Amino acid sequence: MDKSDIKKQIEALAGKNTAGMYQSDFLLTWDKSDDEIAATLITAEILRAMREGNLSCRGFDSGLAVSIFRDHSTRTRFSFAGAADLLGLAVKDLDEEKSQIAHGETVRETANMISFLAEVVGIRDDIFLGEGHTYMKAVAEAVEMGYREGVLPRRPTLVNLQCDIDHPTQSMSDALHLIHTFGGLDKLKGKKVAMSWAYSPSYGKPLSVPQGIIGLLTRFGMEVVLAHPEGYHLMPEVEEIAVRNSGLSGGSYRRVAEMAEAFEGADIVYPKSWAPFSVMADRTRLLKQNDRAGLKELENRCLARNREFVDWECTEASMRSTRDGKALYLHCLPADISGVSCERGEVAATVFERYRRPLYLQAGYKPYIIAAMMFLSKFEDPAEKLDDMISRNEKRVL
Amino acid sequence: MDKSDIKKQIEALAGKNTAGMYQSDFLLTWDKSDDEIAATLITAEILRAMREGNLSCRGFDSGLAVSIFRDHSTRTRFSFAGAADLLGLAVKDLDEEKSQIAHGETVRETANMISFLAEVVGIRDDIFLGEGHTYMKAVAEAVEMGYREGVLPRRPTLVNLQCDIDHPTQSMSDALHLIHTFGGLDKLKGKKVAMSWAYSPSYGKPLSVPQGIIGLLTRFGMEVVLAHPEGYHLMPEVEEIAVRNSGLSGGSYRRVAEMAEAFEGADIVYPKSWAPFSVMADRTRLLKQNDRAGLKELENRCLARNREFVDWECTEASMRSTRDGKALYLHCLPADISGVSCERGEVAATVFERYRRPLYLQAGYKPYIIAAMMFLSKFEDPAEKLDDMISRNEKRVL
Amino acid sequence: MDKSDIKKQIEALAGKNTAGMYQSDFLLTWDKSDDEIAATLITAEILRAMREGNLSCRGFDSGLAVSIFRDHSTRTRFSFAGAADLLGLAVKDLDEEKSQIAHGETVRETANMISFLAEVVGIRDDIFLGEGHTYMKAVAEAVEMGYREGVLPRRPTLVNLQCDIDHPTQSMSDALHLIHTFGGLDKLKGKKVAMSWAYSPSYGKPLSVPQGIIGLLTRFGMEVVLAHPEGYHLMPEVEEIAVRNSGLSGGSYRRVAEMAEAFEGADIVYPKSWAPFSVMADRTRLLKQNDRAGLKELENRCLARNREFVDWECTEASMRSTRDGKALYLHCLPADISGVSCERGEVAATVFERYRRPLYLQAGYKPYIIAAMMFLSKFEDPAEKLDDMISRNEKRVL
Repeated sequence: MDKSDIKKQIEALAGKNTAGMYQSDFLLTWDKSDDEIAATLITAEILRAMREGNLSCRGFDSGLAVSIFRDHSTRTRFSFAGAADLLGLAVKDLDEEKSQIAHGETVRETANMISFLAEVVGIRDDIFLGEGHTYMKAVAEAVEMGYREGVLPRRPTLVNLQCDIDHPTQSMSDALHLIHTFGGLDKLKGKKVAMSWAYSPSYGKPLSVPQGIIGLLTRFGMEVVLAHPEGYHLMPEVEEIAVRNSGLSGGSYRRVAEMAEAFEGADIVYPKSWAPFSVMADRTRLLKQNDRAGLKELENRCLARNREFVDWECTEASMRSTRDGKALYLHCLPADISGVSCERGEVAATVFERYRRPLYLQAGYKPYIIAAMMFLSKFEDPAEKLDDMISRNEKRVL
Repeated sequence: MDKSDIKKQIEALAGKNTAGMYQSDFLLTWDKSDDEIAATLITAEILRAMREGNLSCRGFDSGLAVSIFRDHSTRTRFSFAGAADLLGLAVKDLDEEKSQIAHGETVRETANMISFLAEVVGIRDDIFLGEGHTYMKAVAEAVEMGYREGVLPRRPTLVNLQCDIDHPTQSMSDALHLIHTFGGLDKLKGKKVAMSWAYSPSYGKPLSVPQGIIGLLTRFGMEVVLAHPEGYHLMPEVEEIAVRNSGLSGGSYRRVAEMAEAFEGADIVYPKSWAPFSVMADRTRLLKQNDRAGLKELENRCLARNREFVDWECTEASMRSTRDGKALYLHCLPADISGVSCERGEVAATVFERYRRPLYLQAGYKPYIIAAMMFLSKFEDPAEKLDDMISRNEKRVL
Repeated sequence: MDKSDIKKQIEALAGKNTAGMYQSDFLLTWDKSDDEIAATLITAEILRAMREGNLSCRGFDSGLAVSIFRDHSTRTRFSFAGAADLLGLAVKDLDEEKSQIAHGETVRETANMISFLAEVVGIRDDIFLGEGHTYMKAVAEAVEMGYREGVLPRRPTLVNLQCDIDHPTQSMSDALHLIHTFGGLDKLKGKKVAMSWAYSPSYGKPLSVPQGIIGLLTRFGMEVVLAHPEGYHLMPEVEEIAVRNSGLSGGSYRRVAEMAEAFEGADIVYPKSWAPFSVMADRTRLLKQNDRAGLKELENRCLARNREFVDWECTEASMRSTRDGKALYLHCLPADISGVSCERGEVAATVFERYRRPLYLQAGYKPYIIAAMMFLSKFEDPAEKLDDMISRNEKRVL
């Protein structure tokens, strides 16, 4: 994309209503309007094009980007760090083990204490069902109150880096990848996507990726099919959103009982393991009770149950049934690859290998999606600000 | 504060003698002259006004701000990070577990090894009585020698982020909060402040906050009253400083045996738990011996003793006895709040809740106090430098 | 060094062929041409002179410098952080415990996932024989492929922060120290350097420092003598390189059986402990098998064997046999100092103390060596780029 293309994208952005994003959080994609979703995708594209064209994307001279990771993370951690740095913010991680939070400090207090000089706060909290999103809401409320009371000079805005309900930085990166692959957001209409459960010899994987996918892609007029074994249901509220979305967008949403049915003629497949909702609920309860025996028993029971569905694997055979045998294979990574990272897993090694490059491209959009979410929450007129940046013409590599 | 107010503050700063702060450390407030204390408070105000007026406070293009936290910390950690970033420095934390210090490296050596590109070093070391300040002095001496010998190109200056004796970034933030609340440093003269021990179901809390408070506020002509149960004495050297200070400033310092007496007619109350000096000494000895049984026994004995003073709580009733029933309630946070973070604690929940906003404001001054300490140690003519920055007129949010 | 001296150095740099360094990694000094080695030393000098002359060395507006430390580190960690910050990059450490690497992610995948916005990757991996360098090669290959496939917008270049074979940031800093001490690279010709094993009451120290030293200093026409007890051999491949280098440079390389012989008339001595190659191999095997009993037994056996050579200590007596009794004493630090960090160690306390200042100076070159390695890998015409920077005349301390 050259400068004139970037200018065109900025014009497209200027046509979107992003007023509601200013000083606001990005927690769930379905809280955002179509304009806001489109604006986020466009802004990510602009920032990527600017950086790749060696233009500075710096919007800040100083300021903190706070991160709170309550679960392991590599790609999201680095994406957040890269995005913050791209905009000129310094990352400060809240390591809860090294903080005084153990002293019994409340969420409200901590949220304010870490935010005096913060512009954004990124949170990953996906382990306990019913907790991650609730925690983020509590943090958002706390800093909103702090800002209104004059305790915080600026409203630090939140970016959901994965909660128990949604994983918007992932699903939005996935969407950008689809846009690039199929040639535009409008080109996604009518495309069939199979979001399918897949076997993994582990348990306790969050529901946020499949939920994020059905909650987002149903907005683009796509034919979204969810497949999973009996008992591996997603949160019913999110399925309702998928149904509503597809009605509004002229797409469709349905659930089927077999991976094979979902894959049939699909343009896109997203085979990925997750834990049954009920297991996540039990696990949350047992973790809180610190019931190690119960947890071990649950794990064994769950793994045994998983093993009944060991044939839910994305194989060469299953890929052959997709459109022209060439559906785009998606995964949020890391995948459980049969014969590589485990004996039997989510995907056959040859399939994974064939799609390695597109998978890495898919992951590569995340820093820009996060930067776009930050950007739109911090600048009231993002198109004008980006125009300024282009005019400033400062280089990233000097 | 608009630009002309900032200019006035810079003029006020220019009138203070800060020569002794250049290339020097901020370890104890009582090592600093009245001019230096005033200059630090003014500089913090200027930096805050600049940032809130969206002016860049960047004094460095690059350079490290090293932090060494030997105890848990949230607010000081984030304040240090924010302050460093505000001035253009990158924070690098010395995680002693991941370093080679275990190999038997000396303080002198480590201090130099981490300082080749460092501008400032912030240290929290408050656990062992008789150690924190001593350690900081050793680091300061080491980098001073390194600088004189030409090993270090610049003299990295130290900021005490809490030691066993003083907690200057806290007490100075508290002072700035008082200045804002009462309308100026000169308005503090004659105000009564009650620094009182309060009950907490924990033990081992450092003495540095109450010591920092009596060591600093006695300089402002205030009527400082310390209250604690028998056996919870502070370090006698610090009390001597408080006595001397109050003599010089026209204020007073006295110790009383009851919280109630201290609170009577007070303008400001600071009820906070700490461990008896003797317990801290025993604890230091036992920790060094790694005597777990002894430590457990000490903890039990200490907690039992604390329980004798469970009525040392800041309640609505005790607040009623303060000036007009409306004394300003201070705490360094996190507080032990009765019925919230513990069954019985330092303060009643309704009192804490009523003062939540001022408490958060109090905490919010810390990043600027730390930035001011850094600034005054790095720039020989700080007023001129700030004037330059104002003239440069660069924005923080671009 | 004033600006005109810096200009002269830039001219010298312009005369070196550094084309092969652009977009390339710095893993082993013997993979680099003489021009490349000289260019790295000159660039380090220029960057140091610029910084000390208060000129900005910023080459980047944003970008990540990723570090991966698989072993403890203080000085290299801080050197890397300082170097990255000097050039305008933000450090992001890959903490493998907090990442998803435990999930079975491959090196290829992780390498790409952390590199989307990365300019450089620094790796320390020196614990397992046969692994560190192999790992670095795997990372380099992965990002090279990612770059070629368009997954990565830039080629992140690697800096070896110590592997099982070489420790180039150390040996190059040592070389810069020698250049300063003796007055130029050309002045090193004919100087005798004694790289000698020394006793330490620990075991498992890597071979990379002595190997790095004999692999590098033999290039400068020096008389390099390696001394160690029977059984403490270095990797034969590296000794072959030393032999070849010395042939080409007009220097010499030989191995002797006694520290005393090596020290005799030496201009430079580098007494330092390391583990026997065979022990490192056994240790690697046992660590992989997680054989704790075997490891303990190996440690005991190795320590007992070490104790047979407790007289391999750099003492005042041994120093007296060096040239005029005044050889330059080198160590990568931290040293095992007799009577200080251990009962008997690598060096007598009085010797160490006398050389403390030069030792610290030696260590102080490392940030600039690392910055130079980064710089040469990122800028195609480094002399022109440095010239630009000088012309820009931006200050480091504003």
